[in-house]
Amino acid sequence: MVNVQRYFAKNKDNNKFILDTNDYHHIKNVMRMKDDDLIEVVYDKNLYLCKLNNYEVFIENKIEVEIKNNIKVNLIVPVLQEQKMDLILQKSTELGVDMITPVITERSIVKLDGKSKIKKLNRWNSICKEASEQSKRLDIPKINNIDKLKNIKKQDGLNIICSTKELNNNIRFFLQKHKTCDKINIVIGPEGGLTDEEEKYLNEIGFISVTLGSRILRVETVPLFLLSVIDYEFME
Amino acid sequence: MVNVQRYFAKNKDNNKFILDTNDYHHIKNVMRMKDDDLIEVVYDKNLYLCKLNNYEVFIENKIEVEIKNNIKVNLIVPVLQEQKMDLILQKSTELGVDMITPVITERSIVKLDGKSKIKKLNRWNSICKEASEQSKRLDIPKINNIDKLKNIKKQDGLNIICSTKELNNNIRFFLQKHKTCDKINIVIGPEGGLTDEEEKYLNEIGFISVTLGSRILRVETVPLFLLSVIDYEFME
Repeated sequence: MVNVQRYFAKNKDNNKFILDTNDYHHIKNVMRMKDDDLIEVVYDKNLYLCKLNNYEVFIENKIEVEIKNNIKVNLIVPVLQEQKMDLILQKSTELGVDMITPVITERSIVKLDGKSKIKKLNRWNSICKEASEQSKRLDIPKINNIDKLKNIKKQDGLNIICSTKELNNNIRFFLQKHKTCDKINIVIGPEGGLTDEEEKYLNEIGFISVTLGSRILRVETVPLFLLSVIDYEFME
Repeated sequence: MVNVQRYFAKNKDNNKFILDTNDYHHIKNVMRMKDDDLIEVVYDKNLYLCKLNNYEVFIENKIEVEIKNNIKVNLIVPVLQEQKMDLILQKSTELGVDMITPVITERSIVKLDGKSKIKKLNRWNSICKEASEQSKRLDIPKINNIDKLKNIKKQDGLNIICSTKELNNNIRFFLQKHKTCDKINIVIGPEGGLTDEEEKYLNEIGFISVTLGSRILRVETVPLFLLSVIDYEFME
């Protein structure tokens, strides 16, 4: 089967979709598509086959897709330096993350003012959108506003901390004990780890400390490990 | 506990270790260490605490480490463009790979002559060495010479192909059926996948096609997914 390029539409206008300016540029100048070329468009979690005409996107037909009820994962990650953050966002999107909650922790090195927060969020959203298109998702992970870790509240579902202190409660036994859960919120510490106070606060509001085993992973590798093993554990 | 820098020694000379030239540079100019500073040195899969004197490395004592008999993984990966290859090598080393076998497949885009092969191998070996130091391993993954995929032979242990054609035999059921194995050889296809002939050849010599599920992953994400789930499945 031919690999048809996928885009997320901003809007629908009768039998036409409205895309981002960047996407029109991509279609025209990067992919060099022509009239009558086909693309896939996602709108409101539905998938459509569309045809180009004068760089407008006309609906041909809706494509029926089997939607799986996957477990939802909210990744609560410290803001890291740009390259590491980009890697987390791109790979986490491929590996099926639903929500990303960037946080500032006690040991966070990256400091941000209001303006640079907005710039970061724009950058991160466009990385997630592009990765969603590449990996043929029907949705784009939601990125929450950057907040302080200590403002995190207990949430529905399974609440986990990837701890470097906990030695016994390993992620495999823990997930296998909770096979019926439908949502997981996971806190990942920064380089240097969470402080004792941070981990204690999270434990108090219901987050459970687990260990990922004896390997020493870089911070940016942890989300990829976690999303892989969650996908694996709940694979049918 | 203080995080002590770890290095792999090239040689041992009585009560002294000989390191790579790069490592002396790292100790002196990057870490700016001084006389009496401590480092960890791995030699012949043993770990030693050492003390610096005039930038020579003197053994203080041997550190006893519990060695786990982890399952051995040989990753048979197509040679990809530099950035992707670097990511695979660094992250696979963190995630515990034992051997990497770079191969040229029918659909490989990267072409290499003899000279550039040697240059690549040197680069790759130094990435794996550095990642092994960072993640406190006692060994460095072995990188085999670059060969053609069609020269791959059946090997001891479990032989797997990450297939985009196989739809039913998923990695989870497959690994759970083979919990007693101690070595896994995994072939990963390039962008565009293995050709039908390549997959057929591998099947004939005993490689079994498995699917990683319904997600669409970039080639460089596949090894990270696999090593994570193998680590998880065999976690104790």
